[in-house]
Amino acid sequence: MIITLKQTNTFKDNADVRRLLVSLHVDVIPVEWKSQSLYVVNGKFSELSRREVAKHSGVEAILPIDRPYKLASKTFRPNNGKIKIGNTLLIGGREIIIMAGPCSVETKHQIEDMGKEVKNAGCHVLRGGAFKPRTGPYDFQGLGKIGLRFLHDAGKKYNLPVITEILDVRDIELVEKYTDIFQIGARNMQNYPLLRELGKSRKPVLLKRGMWATYKELLLAAEYILVGGNEHVILCERGIRTHVQETRFTLDLNAVAYLKHETHLPVFVDPSHGTGRANMVRALSRAGVAAGADGLLIEAHTDPRKSISDADQAISPQELTKLVKEVKRVARAVDRE
Amino acid sequence: MIITLKQTNTFKDNADVRRLLVSLHVDVIPVEWKSQSLYVVNGKFSELSRREVAKHSGVEAILPIDRPYKLASKTFRPNNGKIKIGNTLLIGGREIIIMAGPCSVETKHQIEDMGKEVKNAGCHVLRGGAFKPRTGPYDFQGLGKIGLRFLHDAGKKYNLPVITEILDVRDIELVEKYTDIFQIGARNMQNYPLLRELGKSRKPVLLKRGMWATYKELLLAAEYILVGGNEHVILCERGIRTHVQETRFTLDLNAVAYLKHETHLPVFVDPSHGTGRANMVRALSRAGVAAGADGLLIEAHTDPRKSISDADQAISPQELTKLVKEVKRVARAVDRE
Amino acid sequence: MIITLKQTNTFKDNADVRRLLVSLHVDVIPVEWKSQSLYVVNGKFSELSRREVAKHSGVEAILPIDRPYKLASKTFRPNNGKIKIGNTLLIGGREIIIMAGPCSVETKHQIEDMGKEVKNAGCHVLRGGAFKPRTGPYDFQGLGKIGLRFLHDAGKKYNLPVITEILDVRDIELVEKYTDIFQIGARNMQNYPLLRELGKSRKPVLLKRGMWATYKELLLAAEYILVGGNEHVILCERGIRTHVQETRFTLDLNAVAYLKHETHLPVFVDPSHGTGRANMVRALSRAGVAAGADGLLIEAHTDPRKSISDADQAISPQELTKLVKEVKRVARAVDRE
Amino acid sequence: MIITLKQTNTFKDNADVRRLLVSLHVDVIPVEWKSQSLYVVNGKFSELSRREVAKHSGVEAILPIDRPYKLASKTFRPNNGKIKIGNTLLIGGREIIIMAGPCSVETKHQIEDMGKEVKNAGCHVLRGGAFKPRTGPYDFQGLGKIGLRFLHDAGKKYNLPVITEILDVRDIELVEKYTDIFQIGARNMQNYPLLRELGKSRKPVLLKRGMWATYKELLLAAEYILVGGNEHVILCERGIRTHVQETRFTLDLNAVAYLKHETHLPVFVDPSHGTGRANMVRALSRAGVAAGADGLLIEAHTDPRKSISDADQAISPQELTKLVKEVKRVARAVDRE
Repeated sequence: MIITLKQTNTFKDNADVRRLLVSLHVDVIPVEWKSQSLYVVNGKFSELSRREVAKHSGVEAILPIDRPYKLASKTFRPNNGKIKIGNTLLIGGREIIIMAGPCSVETKHQIEDMGKEVKNAGCHVLRGGAFKPRTGPYDFQGLGKIGLRFLHDAGKKYNLPVITEILDVRDIELVEKYTDIFQIGARNMQNYPLLRELGKSRKPVLLKRGMWATYKELLLAAEYILVGGNEHVILCERGIRTHVQETRFTLDLNAVAYLKHETHLPVFVDPSHGTGRANMVRALSRAGVAAGADGLLIEAHTDPRKSISDADQAISPQELTKLVKEVKRVARAVDRE
Repeated sequence: MIITLKQTNTFKDNADVRRLLVSLHVDVIPVEWKSQSLYVVNGKFSELSRREVAKHSGVEAILPIDRPYKLASKTFRPNNGKIKIGNTLLIGGREIIIMAGPCSVETKHQIEDMGKEVKNAGCHVLRGGAFKPRTGPYDFQGLGKIGLRFLHDAGKKYNLPVITEILDVRDIELVEKYTDIFQIGARNMQNYPLLRELGKSRKPVLLKRGMWATYKELLLAAEYILVGGNEHVILCERGIRTHVQETRFTLDLNAVAYLKHETHLPVFVDPSHGTGRANMVRALSRAGVAAGADGLLIEAHTDPRKSISDADQAISPQELTKLVKEVKRVARAVDRE
Repeated sequence: MIITLKQTNTFKDNADVRRLLVSLHVDVIPVEWKSQSLYVVNGKFSELSRREVAKHSGVEAILPIDRPYKLASKTFRPNNGKIKIGNTLLIGGREIIIMAGPCSVETKHQIEDMGKEVKNAGCHVLRGGAFKPRTGPYDFQGLGKIGLRFLHDAGKKYNLPVITEILDVRDIELVEKYTDIFQIGARNMQNYPLLRELGKSRKPVLLKRGMWATYKELLLAAEYILVGGNEHVILCERGIRTHVQETRFTLDLNAVAYLKHETHLPVFVDPSHGTGRANMVRALSRAGVAAGADGLLIEAHTDPRKSISDADQAISPQELTKLVKEVKRVARAVDRE
Repeated sequence: MIITLKQTNTFKDNADVRRLLVSLHVDVIPVEWKSQSLYVVNGKFSELSRREVAKHSGVEAILPIDRPYKLASKTFRPNNGKIKIGNTLLIGGREIIIMAGPCSVETKHQIEDMGKEVKNAGCHVLRGGAFKPRTGPYDFQGLGKIGLRFLHDAGKKYNLPVITEILDVRDIELVEKYTDIFQIGARNMQNYPLLRELGKSRKPVLLKRGMWATYKELLLAAEYILVGGNEHVILCERGIRTHVQETRFTLDLNAVAYLKHETHLPVFVDPSHGTGRANMVRALSRAGVAAGADGLLIEAHTDPRKSISDADQAISPQELTKLVKEVKRVARAVDRE
């Protein structure tokens, strides 16, 4: 259940409602949601109690929600959410948003060159990893802080917001200085301390689906962020682990259609990880948008063969330009742009 | 290796080439492929032997093929194959082909009504099961022969070719009389006697991917049919078994992009089984076509709730009409029709 | 629901009960089960109808069964079933039964030598494939009829019952002449015509779990055989398809514990396919028996490296001898032999 | 490659070797491993360089290691590692170690009662969660610090070392005060900052396999801890995500056999999560030990139905007692205790 509080309420009014709820033996979690105060309630009322709450002068409405992810559910917000970044970028609107860039920030030049290519290809956001979650401790772990700076500067230079991955709860303050959007990688989808801390930030968070996760688990992971009051969550399908051996992961576009029915949060697709093969990225980008995705996350590199990490799946600037054109055509065919 | 024989060869010339090959200790499988005779060769030649074969007057060309599925591979036939059905229908051409109809043929009226709806919606082929592979022995197993007749008559009436599933190798002759296209269900993808026997037919076979199969295994299953001389094989992605519980199967559109790179055979998508949820079928149909599919297989029912089998995934005629319109728009956006 | 008929009934008495059931609008499937006649009933009775049936003079008992697999369920037969083969072999008793032998029968000598080793190691049944379900059409497909004969003769010579795979419904009569136990391979677990035909045989059938199948689906596949009146079904876990790449399949011993709770049918384990690695077979054999399996199916070869098929997973006679000893110790630790 | 340094080396000797290595353009990671200093080397030497290094007076040996997990591999340490806890407990020795207790510490009484039962049943370690990784933000998240204290005291009272999960890298210092063994949950298997920090601790870490992870990924996760110098890592198989719906996860005992071949680290099995069903825990405990596991992690509760979390899989003290007895019998059958 979610109880919305009147906007005219004083602090005391809200406290009053809370006292009433607690007296009815339910758990109450206060959430500041945009310009509105909410109480997320866990537990059940009797019909009598429900009426008592509804009558309270501080209560605007009671929303019964039949999903375990309350704030993420469409019952709470039937309309698709929109996330504004800077003055120009709108995620979740009519336009398909494309975030592109290298797996890792490697050098100042590399990320600047890529920024230029990303801009020229018509993409909207520059991606690049400074802290990399690598399977083994002997792999390249990213440039760290200096990489963040390079990314930030490249974004500035080409007027592109940037997105980068946050791995460690202790780095949030640092990363927040340099990025426009936090990325939570698949391996951290259920890193609850990280999710909770990002719930306190007001910067958007792109949350990648764990390669093992059900749709419900993804939505509950998002709920951890939402309940902290950060409503700017973007979900991202990036492939699941299956028995298929010819591709790195199996991109699950069922997820896109399902999530668009269940949640108001924007849904992105990462066909680079979802296939692991550069020559399949364009086809799956088109498919993702046709399935209803609000945007794409693409790995691109000025010289894919020389990419330090994930070389097999990065596409060239030429391919990226082609991709953007094809995606735009499909976007218009599904009444997007 | 595939050795193509000159079209001007006599029977004796071919036998002569074969003798030479056998003397070189390789396995030779003769295949009649359209208007051409081939020898599929397993084993390896020395460079010397290769030259000897190449020089033989009966040999047109030697194609080295690095895939275990030789006839299915793009090295053998670089151009996409096309399958003609009757005078009007072309599978694998520019036009996206949509096959639609009920899971099971239930009554003469039901399949006739559905035929009309399928035709009016702008679909190309009428599907309907007469022999049903049901998980349990107490489930409805299909109408059998009478169902075949109903399907055939409904197709005739609305000038629609029909497709129906073949379960039992002993039923091939019977089913062949009534159907235009054989369907091999996912559970039978590795039913090798069935594949071999259909290799002897000259009617097209739509081969569904097993829910456990890799792409290579699907292509090798197709090879069983091709090697019999039946080149009219259509591959169909219909969802795989994964850990996801919110959908019946996980539709794997990576398969479409991968297969279009690897094989000249047409590739279809079945979003009805691939999702198991009627409200996701349109989105995944669009996605399938955007990924490069040549056609769709859709479960539709005049009254989905009353469908004897697979009620949750069948869509109504109204939905089907909408689907066809949406798919056509996406088709044009990817230079198809 | 299962209705057991009195043993003293005449044919007319049984027909009488059936007429009553049909008049109550339920589906009735007559099954001859050992020395007893049954009616498997699908559909529901009112309480009144139930009483009417119970009172009928030809009815012995009404068993309400809450599982879709009625004959396979423990509600129908609470005690574990036992299958006698010849005069000496009892499957499902205290003793752990070990079936061993090569993947394929290759030559008369090979299978005879193996028969000797299998006997000496203390195993109970000789396995060997004459018809092989191979992923590709160019792989070795087995010796066919002559292979059956070699297997049969080797079994005779060393007084070992034999088991071999049946692939094609048209070969049942042939295979039945030579084998003591039919094996249905994983790929054919849902080959319903094959299951139905083997339901008419009275020889035991070892049914391997499909690599995609749930436990319920395996039990329903068994039900197809049971409903034909062949109660001699052995279930066999042989590994499922998962994301794990280090082994060929993932042996699922949860299946053993689950099935032993759900069904009276004997449960076997095939650690050779379930791991695909010879150096893991002993460990998983011990584990299978510790989990409650009634027997094992082991791939062994006199010279594993020279095995035509599945060379990586076959163990040597020395390893087999070790395996039997280890398994016997574990068997005693779980009150078996 | 791992280079072991002479124990008689001075600090300067070691620095000298390092300088040499760096001059040869390889990455050098110094590791303090028990009483020995090592350099883990990434990159390749020429034969000439190798000899130069081998000849260096500070170098004891060069171990070429062909696995990406160098310190975890059997090439580095051929003998199974042993971990001592306190004066009496030895993990990785002949005795099978059983850790048991509730999913969550709920009250002081509950965990004390459980401690008594765990002791009486003959188990060795008391488990209990104070920080719980829960799928949704509205689920019970554990008692936190006070829960740690209750657990610690219960362990003290019954002379049982304790194990508890660490979720947040910022809690390490706190948890370290109260626990004898850190547990890393499946969801955090690739939480690299957490792994790295625990590499700096000298307390043992039980690392659970992610439900999506391959064996290699598990070993590489362990390597993150080992490379920090904490050699006390215990691996734990706890079930993977598969298509099977009848159980919560699929326990993968192939993993046990595989890991025992690949690594010197002790391997545990958690049949409680691996099945999710209390009535299957004993069977899979026996199977785990028969497969070669060094120990078990069991969820037990004084009143399983009242367990706040994971009620379906917790077993009663009576069942636990039975389990220990059965496991001991199997242990002896595989030459353990």
